[in-house]
Amino acid sequence: MQKIALAIHGGAGTILKSSMTPQLENECRASLKAALETGWEILKNGGNSLDAVEDAVISLENAPLFNAGKGAVFTHDEKNEMDAAIMDGKNLSAGAVAFVKNVKNPIRLARLVMEKTEHILLAGIGANEFAREMKVEFKPDEYFFTDFRFEQLLSAREKGVVELDHTTNEVQSSKSEPQSSSKPKSKIGTVGAAACDFLGNVAAATSTGGMTNKKFGRIGDTPIIGAGTYADNQTCAVSCTGHGEFFMKTVAAYDVACRMKYKNLNLTEAANETITNLFELGGEGGLVAVDAFGNVALPFNSEGMYRAFITSDGEPVIKIYKC
Amino acid sequence: MQKIALAIHGGAGTILKSSMTPQLENECRASLKAALETGWEILKNGGNSLDAVEDAVISLENAPLFNAGKGAVFTHDEKNEMDAAIMDGKNLSAGAVAFVKNVKNPIRLARLVMEKTEHILLAGIGANEFAREMKVEFKPDEYFFTDFRFEQLLSAREKGVVELDHTTNEVQSSKSEPQSSSKPKSKIGTVGAAACDFLGNVAAATSTGGMTNKKFGRIGDTPIIGAGTYADNQTCAVSCTGHGEFFMKTVAAYDVACRMKYKNLNLTEAANETITNLFELGGEGGLVAVDAFGNVALPFNSEGMYRAFITSDGEPVIKIYKC
Repeated sequence: MQKIALAIHGGAGTILKSSMTPQLENECRASLKAALETGWEILKNGGNSLDAVEDAVISLENAPLFNAGKGAVFTHDEKNEMDAAIMDGKNLSAGAVAFVKNVKNPIRLARLVMEKTEHILLAGIGANEFAREMKVEFKPDEYFFTDFRFEQLLSAREKGVVELDHTTNEVQSSKSEPQSSSKPKSKIGTVGAAACDFLGNVAAATSTGGMTNKKFGRIGDTPIIGAGTYADNQTCAVSCTGHGEFFMKTVAAYDVACRMKYKNLNLTEAANETITNLFELGGEGGLVAVDAFGNVALPFNSEGMYRAFITSDGEPVIKIYKC
Repeated sequence: MQKIALAIHGGAGTILKSSMTPQLENECRASLKAALETGWEILKNGGNSLDAVEDAVISLENAPLFNAGKGAVFTHDEKNEMDAAIMDGKNLSAGAVAFVKNVKNPIRLARLVMEKTEHILLAGIGANEFAREMKVEFKPDEYFFTDFRFEQLLSAREKGVVELDHTTNEVQSSKSEPQSSSKPKSKIGTVGAAACDFLGNVAAATSTGGMTNKKFGRIGDTPIIGAGTYADNQTCAVSCTGHGEFFMKTVAAYDVACRMKYKNLNLTEAANETITNLFELGGEGGLVAVDAFGNVALPFNSEGMYRAFITSDGEPVIKIYKC
């Protein structure tokens, strides 16, 4: 019998038990559990993987704790610019948006790009125009304002650093060290999901608020099909989180699929190799992946990754730290 | 002895001898020849592949015939918005820009993103701000105005169609047929280059003006690392041209590299398989690729592709049609 599965994440980075309060930890676990249940409800009732990943990600976008939707970080100009992507493994259809503003659920907009246009990626003012045409829900700036994120911006601006998306790294804006990572610091990141339904269709979705104090319209790996998000029934569905530029140059999400397709590895082997390769190049992060047989893999090379999964045995697993 | 090689393209599509004038054909051949000689001069004098692909692409951006730089097509709002990407196979460094305006050579800006920032992809107003900080050469709207492109826009607007980047396809803006292709028509597309130098370093660069009559800030495959552009000394350097969305969902440029890396195919076999797979999914286009041994491959599944290459034997080959 076809097995079903759902794996989700809320970002990877230097997440240490010592730097967490019990209350924050409980809130994170509760948000992950709620998102997992939302997606699982769809899958176990025979719904499709695309709806499951979309709704799980919407649940995480609506939670203020994660760097996506409501909890999105601030850009240098005190704005919230969000990216998202979704992909259907059944037919390789995909939709994505980059730096949209005031859209309550960027992942819903990404799905509309997939279903209502002949394009895959829309960005900036144009993507916001499309959102208005599609009549998606908009929210005022205040909705996206969280004290925590604003303090992060003030601190980042004061130090003249750009805080990486998803991860807990801080990168000096120094021009002498392009594309390098530096000292980490605790923070909660990007969200995503991968699922397999009763028909063996897989899907992946990822959503992020990008980087604190970012400038110049930087686009990270999240909305890039192949880098942060990928799905193909032949292999697997993947959603990544971490130091975006490394996921882009290693084309990480598609790399997992290629190691399965061309090297005949299983899901766990393929996902582990991709994350090991990322680490060897200096990139920090992780991913969640699900194959068309209902197997899951959630490898990461950072101190922790907010993650949860559930497979056909129906037992949810929610984890934050390495062990 | 290490062999060197350079392959370039000026777009793929339904290019038929019957629909070309001898004068236009001569102009296209002359522009391809000039770009090839520009890059080759660098390579044969011991220069690096990154400079060779950048300068070859600049030569094509400065030619009014191709849909990049000076010859960029018009958006719905009568603007020229350009995308470009460059990647260094030596260390997987990459830089890209999406919908920049009034920048004379978007590929130069992409290289500055690679060398002067910790990011890979900058888009829109932010990318233009970065261009100003970098003091790259700007040109007024008139520079990018070509009668031919403006007539294309008027015709596309009248018919209510969006003309695909690089290719000769026209896609109805119909919302009932997402991500599908329709009837082709003659047009000249995107530009790109792939090279291997005497040190065995490979590099790739691609530049485009996107789609005629495009709206909503659509980003195609050109500036997406893995989709339209990719380079890794371990495998090859690739620059793609064609129906962008198909190159995005098949992660075409990285797919060539993966078929070499994980399936142990040679460059020609890998590139052919990628283009065949694209065709089976309904995607039209082609690519130029160079491996670290100085071999070249220039497969395409359309009627024609403006293309040229030169390898260590020093004999330039310039072609347009299938045979």
